[in-house]
Amino acid sequence: MNNYRELSRKKLTQRGVSIEDIALLVFDLQKKYCPTLHLDDCITAVDEVLEKREVAFTILTGIELDVAAENNSLNEINEVIKKDYSLYGIDEILALSIVNVHGSIALTNFGYLDKTKPGIVGILEKAGKEGAACHTFLDDIVCAIVSSAASKIAHDYENKKALLE
Amino acid sequence: MNNYRELSRKKLTQRGVSIEDIALLVFDLQKKYCPTLHLDDCITAVDEVLEKREVAFTILTGIELDVAAENNSLNEINEVIKKDYSLYGIDEILALSIVNVHGSIALTNFGYLDKTKPGIVGILEKAGKEGAACHTFLDDIVCAIVSSAASKIAHDYENKKALLE
Amino acid sequence: MNNYRELSRKKLTQRGVSIEDIALLVFDLQKKYCPTLHLDDCITAVDEVLEKREVAFTILTGIELDVAAENNSLNEINEVIKKDYSLYGIDEILALSIVNVHGSIALTNFGYLDKTKPGIVGILEKAGKEGAACHTFLDDIVCAIVSSAASKIAHDYENKKALLE
Amino acid sequence: MNNYRELSRKKLTQRGVSIEDIALLVFDLQKKYCPTLHLDDCITAVDEVLEKREVAFTILTGIELDVAAENNSLNEINEVIKKDYSLYGIDEILALSIVNVHGSIALTNFGYLDKTKPGIVGILEKAGKEGAACHTFLDDIVCAIVSSAASKIAHDYENKKALLE
Repeated sequence: MNNYRELSRKKLTQRGVSIEDIALLVFDLQKKYCPTLHLDDCITAVDEVLEKREVAFTILTGIELDVAAENNSLNEINEVIKKDYSLYGIDEILALSIVNVHGSIALTNFGYLDKTKPGIVGILEKAGKEGAACHTFLDDIVCAIVSSAASKIAHDYENKKALLE
Repeated sequence: MNNYRELSRKKLTQRGVSIEDIALLVFDLQKKYCPTLHLDDCITAVDEVLEKREVAFTILTGIELDVAAENNSLNEINEVIKKDYSLYGIDEILALSIVNVHGSIALTNFGYLDKTKPGIVGILEKAGKEGAACHTFLDDIVCAIVSSAASKIAHDYENKKALLE
Repeated sequence: MNNYRELSRKKLTQRGVSIEDIALLVFDLQKKYCPTLHLDDCITAVDEVLEKREVAFTILTGIELDVAAENNSLNEINEVIKKDYSLYGIDEILALSIVNVHGSIALTNFGYLDKTKPGIVGILEKAGKEGAACHTFLDDIVCAIVSSAASKIAHDYENKKALLE
Repeated sequence: MNNYRELSRKKLTQRGVSIEDIALLVFDLQKKYCPTLHLDDCITAVDEVLEKREVAFTILTGIELDVAAENNSLNEINEVIKKDYSLYGIDEILALSIVNVHGSIALTNFGYLDKTKPGIVGILEKAGKEGAACHTFLDDIVCAIVSSAASKIAHDYENKKALLE
């Protein structure tokens, strides 16, 4: 199974998404709540999210669908996925498999990122819209990883505060 | 059961939330996607969301908890709810009972509204933070109604376009 | 878009699932709560579920993945899907896109069907386990349609009772 | 915060639910998949679930609502909660805050337990139906804890198997 975790990381890199890209968005989301936050903490949190079995499977499945749509090897659903049709909705549902296991802070952050598309999310979406690639699933998956890592940081920060009290 | 629907509308008004407040936020969310949208369409969509049984029950349960916390009549959980502790999370979960039945567009809009707190959502939150009232559940419920009505409008708009093609 | 609805029905038939198969499971679930229920009511409820855009997209996407795994045309994830690995979990998540929009009765029934695998669900699963076909996504999708139609019937029944009171 | 965890355990005991009651149901669910499973492993898994902040908050909020309904101190919604009206649905939604963070195995087991009501779940429901107490939220919360602990065991078992390979 560790194999799937490594494969999912490799696939992210191949599709143009680095751990740093993801960690930067986590930092932007949480720095105002956690003043002592460093980018390294965000990288650690992203690493922890990527350790989860569900996350590896979601990344591999989503990228599989994106690449298949790029290659026009899907049937009826190919155009819907390739053009990221706004009412398709399966991309957000797939990303929920990551978001759900990280609690309600992950959920609200996910929606926010999906609407505002900062950093690497916007870059992926732009390339997708221009027809250079299909990122219908990947952009939502990145939003899900960012929001889950942000939720982890919020919970850890609160735990540390509680210990000091 | 219709009784519960009327009661839930009355409670919203009593707690300072009008249908127009909600419809305005729906309009702001959807106008850029649906250029011919009128505020009246948004009011109709909000009315449709409020007709659902789950929505009435969620509104009544959430406001019940807010009011109980205001009156300090809850036990262990009173302070957590009254101060809207950021990791409480049950308020967002309760709002999901509304959001889930309206599909993935409702879900992403919900997260966005919960983070950005526009219009009446911000007003409710400010009054809550200042200690004038407890709106821990209500502000999330309003976000859920807005995002659900926005999802309805997006789906109806797409259906109309499909008919014209 | 209506096109996708027809396509999703055709695909269900091609993969060995008829509306009657689905309606029979709905009938078995709800007859004890609704004594006057007929199989025709269940067929109508299944038809209504299949009218939803999200449902059509989920059916088409899930069957696409099943068929691709059968043909060994997926990459890293092919064996995981083909063998319906118990911790994969993406099949249940995909089915949630159908279940969520039908409320909490749909959700509990979904879990029950997924564990007990009655009728056509068990037939699909057996054929999958024997290697004759891959139904990793389809069996969960059928559970989701059954439980959603059952939820519709429960709500309609309650509405009728309320009118008579 | 640790305080809330202890309080939530104390409340469970006060309302007639022991860790052993919960662990027994976990054992019944998982023994066929994990032949070497002991009841002690199930107790450990239940303890881990109860350590999560969301779980403590859900238990405290749900029991608060049950007790308030017992005391007739809620308003419009009192009868709906007291009689565990089948279309209420907020009790299942609240339990989802526990189930969601434990992945898709937790979700399907939750639905199964909620329909079949084994052991302590059935005892709670019977006492509720007889009017001796209100357990509308508690029975769903117990189902959620059981199914989440079962999911933990399934994942740990798979991890151990992977290490031996």
